[in-house]
Amino acid sequence: MTSIGILGNEGRMGRAIAAAIKEAKATHAGGIGSAGDPRGLAEKCDVLIDFTAPAALPANLAAAQDAGRAIVIGTTGLTADDHGRIDAAAERIAVLQTGNTSLGIVMLCALVRQAAASLGSDWDVEIAEMHHRMKVDAPSGTALMLGEAAAAGHGDTLDAVRTPAREGHTGARKTGTIGFSALRGGTVAGDHMVVFAGEGERIELAHRAEDRMIFARGAVRAALWLSRQAPGRYTMNQVLGM
Amino acid sequence: MTSIGILGNEGRMGRAIAAAIKEAKATHAGGIGSAGDPRGLAEKCDVLIDFTAPAALPANLAAAQDAGRAIVIGTTGLTADDHGRIDAAAERIAVLQTGNTSLGIVMLCALVRQAAASLGSDWDVEIAEMHHRMKVDAPSGTALMLGEAAAAGHGDTLDAVRTPAREGHTGARKTGTIGFSALRGGTVAGDHMVVFAGEGERIELAHRAEDRMIFARGAVRAALWLSRQAPGRYTMNQVLGM
Amino acid sequence: MTSIGILGNEGRMGRAIAAAIKEAKATHAGGIGSAGDPRGLAEKCDVLIDFTAPAALPANLAAAQDAGRAIVIGTTGLTADDHGRIDAAAERIAVLQTGNTSLGIVMLCALVRQAAASLGSDWDVEIAEMHHRMKVDAPSGTALMLGEAAAAGHGDTLDAVRTPAREGHTGARKTGTIGFSALRGGTVAGDHMVVFAGEGERIELAHRAEDRMIFARGAVRAALWLSRQAPGRYTMNQVLGM
Amino acid sequence: MTSIGILGNEGRMGRAIAAAIKEAKATHAGGIGSAGDPRGLAEKCDVLIDFTAPAALPANLAAAQDAGRAIVIGTTGLTADDHGRIDAAAERIAVLQTGNTSLGIVMLCALVRQAAASLGSDWDVEIAEMHHRMKVDAPSGTALMLGEAAAAGHGDTLDAVRTPAREGHTGARKTGTIGFSALRGGTVAGDHMVVFAGEGERIELAHRAEDRMIFARGAVRAALWLSRQAPGRYTMNQVLGM
Repeated sequence: MTSIGILGNEGRMGRAIAAAIKEAKATHAGGIGSAGDPRGLAEKCDVLIDFTAPAALPANLAAAQDAGRAIVIGTTGLTADDHGRIDAAAERIAVLQTGNTSLGIVMLCALVRQAAASLGSDWDVEIAEMHHRMKVDAPSGTALMLGEAAAAGHGDTLDAVRTPAREGHTGARKTGTIGFSALRGGTVAGDHMVVFAGEGERIELAHRAEDRMIFARGAVRAALWLSRQAPGRYTMNQVLGM
Repeated sequence: MTSIGILGNEGRMGRAIAAAIKEAKATHAGGIGSAGDPRGLAEKCDVLIDFTAPAALPANLAAAQDAGRAIVIGTTGLTADDHGRIDAAAERIAVLQTGNTSLGIVMLCALVRQAAASLGSDWDVEIAEMHHRMKVDAPSGTALMLGEAAAAGHGDTLDAVRTPAREGHTGARKTGTIGFSALRGGTVAGDHMVVFAGEGERIELAHRAEDRMIFARGAVRAALWLSRQAPGRYTMNQVLGM
Repeated sequence: MTSIGILGNEGRMGRAIAAAIKEAKATHAGGIGSAGDPRGLAEKCDVLIDFTAPAALPANLAAAQDAGRAIVIGTTGLTADDHGRIDAAAERIAVLQTGNTSLGIVMLCALVRQAAASLGSDWDVEIAEMHHRMKVDAPSGTALMLGEAAAAGHGDTLDAVRTPAREGHTGARKTGTIGFSALRGGTVAGDHMVVFAGEGERIELAHRAEDRMIFARGAVRAALWLSRQAPGRYTMNQVLGM
Repeated sequence: MTSIGILGNEGRMGRAIAAAIKEAKATHAGGIGSAGDPRGLAEKCDVLIDFTAPAALPANLAAAQDAGRAIVIGTTGLTADDHGRIDAAAERIAVLQTGNTSLGIVMLCALVRQAAASLGSDWDVEIAEMHHRMKVDAPSGTALMLGEAAAAGHGDTLDAVRTPAREGHTGARKTGTIGFSALRGGTVAGDHMVVFAGEGERIELAHRAEDRMIFARGAVRAALWLSRQAPGRYTMNQVLGM
């Protein structure tokens, strides 16, 4: 059995990861909050999961490196310097950093990129998502990630081809653009759909989240996989064997 | 067998109605274009279908009235005066005027209104539609009709509760508003979905058009029904027995 | 504030109802398990919710009647005698008995019946559902309820028109039949879709449950509504104002 | 411009291919029916499309080979001997044989195989399809193709894991099985959906055909691509650059 330490065990994500460790029948080595000491935790576990803040990254990486432990980093808002630190650590330990730990969403991104590359921009790409009524921004970060995957498949950047939400007289659709739609309501955890619309046929690639535990489950699955890898920097795609 | 005359037999809609008459095994009494004489046509048929322009309405109504024929009016862009003329004609003949002759869409509007009235505005209403890449405006007229049905069910007007397409920082959703999303791509004839999102559950009411023949088919079904009615002004809901 | 007593507070449903009472900001008057005394509970509350077993029904109804309390009955497997007892009690207290307390599903059934009645059996009706991998029977009880609603709208009984799941050479579809499809997988709480397929167009009426709390929430909403009604026997449709 | 000859220009598919050639602005070199001479046609065109019958295959292949023309073969019901003939011809000319010429469906099969391989059989696979009311068998050939792709991704054969349509007491779902559901109704050209259902999340990969022209369009696109290839045997996946 693999023992997993949680950096950032306060708040909803920390508790969700503890529950996912239990579900996965892995050993929970404990966790620390924002004021805790990562070194003690790193010593007692096989692999770390870090959902803290960018400010905690240097100490967390150092602890993992000194103890020779793999580390999954789900912290968002990282700078170029942070990425430099991660690259440096990856010379001695296995590190996986990602903005999205849901296996389903990582899978969907890969499929969207493949479909966009094979079908080409003759098939119009549209991305629709629905989230609960409390979400304050649009489109969702995941929708933008899917848009980037589609744009990359076309050999574009999303910035160059993103179309604002349609309202009023928009004119005919421009080839190669990518449209976004955001629905809000109820308690929807998060649904995403990417449509490829060709002549007389459509492909729809969708993901439905039932609850937010999927991010914790994916982080635990990544940690279990990472604990068996040689030093280096890894991605979620590799966890899925792609 | 009922004999149907087409006012406005030029263009795509006129041809589609002729095809739908054939499909329905009704008799096609002939048709006239914008320069034709409606009186001759009215004499030879049991019921008229008018998809022309507002300017042709007075002559078309007069022809129907003088010949004592029922008339289905699908012409759009009518003024209050036009509606007054229709009401006057409806004292002597059966008249059905509608902005949408698809039976499925008329049905969906009725279901949406019913659901909105019963569920109340605690269930958030969102409307998404997808149309082909050549469509130049958003949301579609049908989406707005569905929005009006939902607003009416809530006891509101759509103008008071319509939310613009979401982009950027929108804040949390406001209770009672109705959101619209427009997807564009490929050759999609027209899909519409109305979502009612409550606590832990969702109802989705959708319509999918395979092609634009549905408007012609619905107009023919309305004409066959209308030819058996007493003088008066009717709606598509009544064709569906509602 | 309305005070609600739970008959059958053991097990998953009892706990879910307690949580839903809290969510609705109603007062929870307490609950009893299968060995408890319903009379004491009935005295302390405004309305009862009964999710026990048919054997407990006579004592539960007597307690509600003697205390003059309204009662929502979600117990399944009732006999004709049980229904007779409920009718008798309904002369003195408000009683609502139902096989399904989800507001969304009750709503969907009403919409399906309306659509089937208006569209007629020229529009083919198909019902698809998806549930989690542990579900051992097919189709779901809710799918059959939806099928009964569609059949009733057509003026049929479901038994007369139900088509077995399709496999192999089935021949062309027979007009007026209703088909069922059951998907199983993952942890899906329960999705249902009723398709009405006409010439060139389709209507899809769907319900998605995010979790099984919806049944408890609907029972609580029914209890709050019922506590304000005169004696009589009521249905979930009336809770929705239909 | 590339000139395309149609072997089997009678019937619906032949006419659809002629229309697709026009749409693609390729040159239509003519076509022959079942009694025609393939040699004359092969001489006048750059590439052949063959939607005839297995009995015509030897003469068609010989004509293509002698004239040095590429040939797309969409004929179904081929024997092992037929495949041997195709392999032999592919030593001298470019040949592409396929059971499905829709680009969207070929794409979907590839995505399904990839998803099944990456997600593994912990994610339950279910396949649902809907077709018009006249279809006499279930599941559709395309649904079975998608099932084979999913099974191959899991390292299985479909025969070993295919579950019959569910009805009655089925017991809990068995890991690694693949379920099929067939809906029939209206005039639906063909919708297919493959669901991958995991813990708390689902991926849905779907294809919607608006009409049956997509098979003709895909055949023409394959022909245009094949006319530029060296001798060899090719697949639709390669047309999509996979």
